[in-house]
Amino acid sequence: MISVTIIGYGNVGSHLVKAIYGSAYAKITQVYSRSAFSLPHTMDHIACINSFDDLAEADCYIIAVPDDHIKHVSAQLPFTDKLVVHTSGSVSMDVLDPKNRQGVFYPLQTFSKNKDVDFKEIPICIEAAQADDLELLNKLGASISEKVSKITSDERAKMHVAAVFVNNFVNHLYHISEEIMEEHNLDFSLLKPLIKETASKIETLSAKQAQTGPAKRNDLQTIKRHTNQLTDDTQKDIYSLLTKAIKETHTTNERKL
Amino acid sequence: MISVTIIGYGNVGSHLVKAIYGSAYAKITQVYSRSAFSLPHTMDHIACINSFDDLAEADCYIIAVPDDHIKHVSAQLPFTDKLVVHTSGSVSMDVLDPKNRQGVFYPLQTFSKNKDVDFKEIPICIEAAQADDLELLNKLGASISEKVSKITSDERAKMHVAAVFVNNFVNHLYHISEEIMEEHNLDFSLLKPLIKETASKIETLSAKQAQTGPAKRNDLQTIKRHTNQLTDDTQKDIYSLLTKAIKETHTTNERKL
Repeated sequence: MISVTIIGYGNVGSHLVKAIYGSAYAKITQVYSRSAFSLPHTMDHIACINSFDDLAEADCYIIAVPDDHIKHVSAQLPFTDKLVVHTSGSVSMDVLDPKNRQGVFYPLQTFSKNKDVDFKEIPICIEAAQADDLELLNKLGASISEKVSKITSDERAKMHVAAVFVNNFVNHLYHISEEIMEEHNLDFSLLKPLIKETASKIETLSAKQAQTGPAKRNDLQTIKRHTNQLTDDTQKDIYSLLTKAIKETHTTNERKL
Repeated sequence: MISVTIIGYGNVGSHLVKAIYGSAYAKITQVYSRSAFSLPHTMDHIACINSFDDLAEADCYIIAVPDDHIKHVSAQLPFTDKLVVHTSGSVSMDVLDPKNRQGVFYPLQTFSKNKDVDFKEIPICIEAAQADDLELLNKLGASISEKVSKITSDERAKMHVAAVFVNNFVNHLYHISEEIMEEHNLDFSLLKPLIKETASKIETLSAKQAQTGPAKRNDLQTIKRHTNQLTDDTQKDIYSLLTKAIKETHTTNERKL
C-alpha cells in the first residue's frame, strides 16, 4: 500500500484525493491546504491539516498548487530526502527544492471543481530523478489510471504546448462561436452536437483526414462571404489566419502526393 | 406518411436515407445519384435511379449535393410547383430554381460516410417560402430528430460561420497539436481524453466560464516559453493571435465587473 499526502486542495488536488481514496493500492495519509477546508464526509478519517509542521510520514508527497507556488511550497517542507512531486504540465521537475527527491505526477486533463472525471481514462505522465521513485510513481499511477507514461520534463513542456492548442485555444473558438450566435439571437446549443462530433471524429480519424470546410476546398466565394459577415476585427483575423493555415496544410499535402 | 425523394447519395444523402428509412412518419420513394450506386440490402424495395426522367411523385424532393451543384441540379428537375429543398448550411434558399416551391432542410452536423450518427440529436434547420411547406418540413424533421428549428437563410449564413469556428477551425487546432506531438515523438492519443473533456465541458459551462490556461491568467513567462518552443511560423502566429484574443476577452470581462 503506497501512502500519499496531498498538498493543495484545489481542482487537481481534490480530484486526486478522490481518485486515490478509491484505489486499492494507495491510501491518503493527510491532505494539506493553506486555508480551512473539509473533505467529503466519507473521508472523515483522513487528517486535514493547515500547517506544514503537522505533516506526517508518507511514501510520496504530491504538491498540487498553482505553478508559480510550487518552488516556494517545496522549499518550505520541514523534511529532507523524501519523494516530493508536483502535478504541473508546464513546470520542470527541477523547480522542486533538491533537499527532497524530485518527481512529477501530471494528470493530463482539465479539471473543474464540480465536475467528476473518470480517472481511469486520464493519462498520467510521470518523471523522477531516481529509478526507485519512478517505479513507485508508476505503481501509484497504475492504481488510479490505465494510462501511465514516463515523460521527461522536456517532453512534458512540448506536450503542454500541444495541450494548449486542443484545450485553451479550442475553448476560445467555442467562445467566439457562442458570441456570433448570441449576436444574431441564435441558440448556441444548436452547435453542441457538432462540437461533440468534431471531438469524437478524432478518436478514429487523423485531424488531417477529418478536415472539411471552405478553407480545405479552397472555396473562395464562401470564405469571402464569411469574412464579410464577421463584425469583430479579432474574429476576422482569426478566421483569415486559420483559413490560410488550413489551405497551406492541404496544398502541401497535395504537393507531397 | 410523408413521401421523400433524395437526390444525391454522398455523406449527407446517405445518412438522410438511413434516418428517413427508420422513421414511422416518412418514407423514401426514390434515391437518385448521377453514378451507379446501391442501397443497403434491407432497402432493396427502394428505387435507385440515375436519370431525372425517372423521378416519380413525392411530397418532398431533398437535394443533397455539393453546394455549387445545387442551382444546376434544381434547374434540371423535369417538373414544376413541387417542394424542392436543399441541405446546405451556407447556401441561400433562393439558389433553388423558382419553378418549384423552395425550401431548406439542413441537418447541422458533420457527416462521414462510414461513421453512424444519432439523428435524434442532430438539429435540423428548416426554411420554406410557403407556410404549408414549412409545416411539412417541420413534420419531416420531427420524424427523425428531436430538434427542429425554423431558421431563415440569413440566420443560417451566420450560423454557418459559427459552425466553421467550432468544426473546421477546431479540427485544424487538433491537427497542429498532432504535428507538435509527432515532431517530438510523443503519442497524440495522450491528448484524446483532454480533447473529449474540453468538448464535454461546453455541455454545462459557457465557453467563457470554461476558459483556463496561461493566456487567461496572463502568465507571460509560460506564454514566452511556449512561443519559443514552436518551430513553425504559422503555429507561432496562431499561438500569438489566439493568446491575444483570450487576453482581450478576459480583460474586457474584468473591466465589465
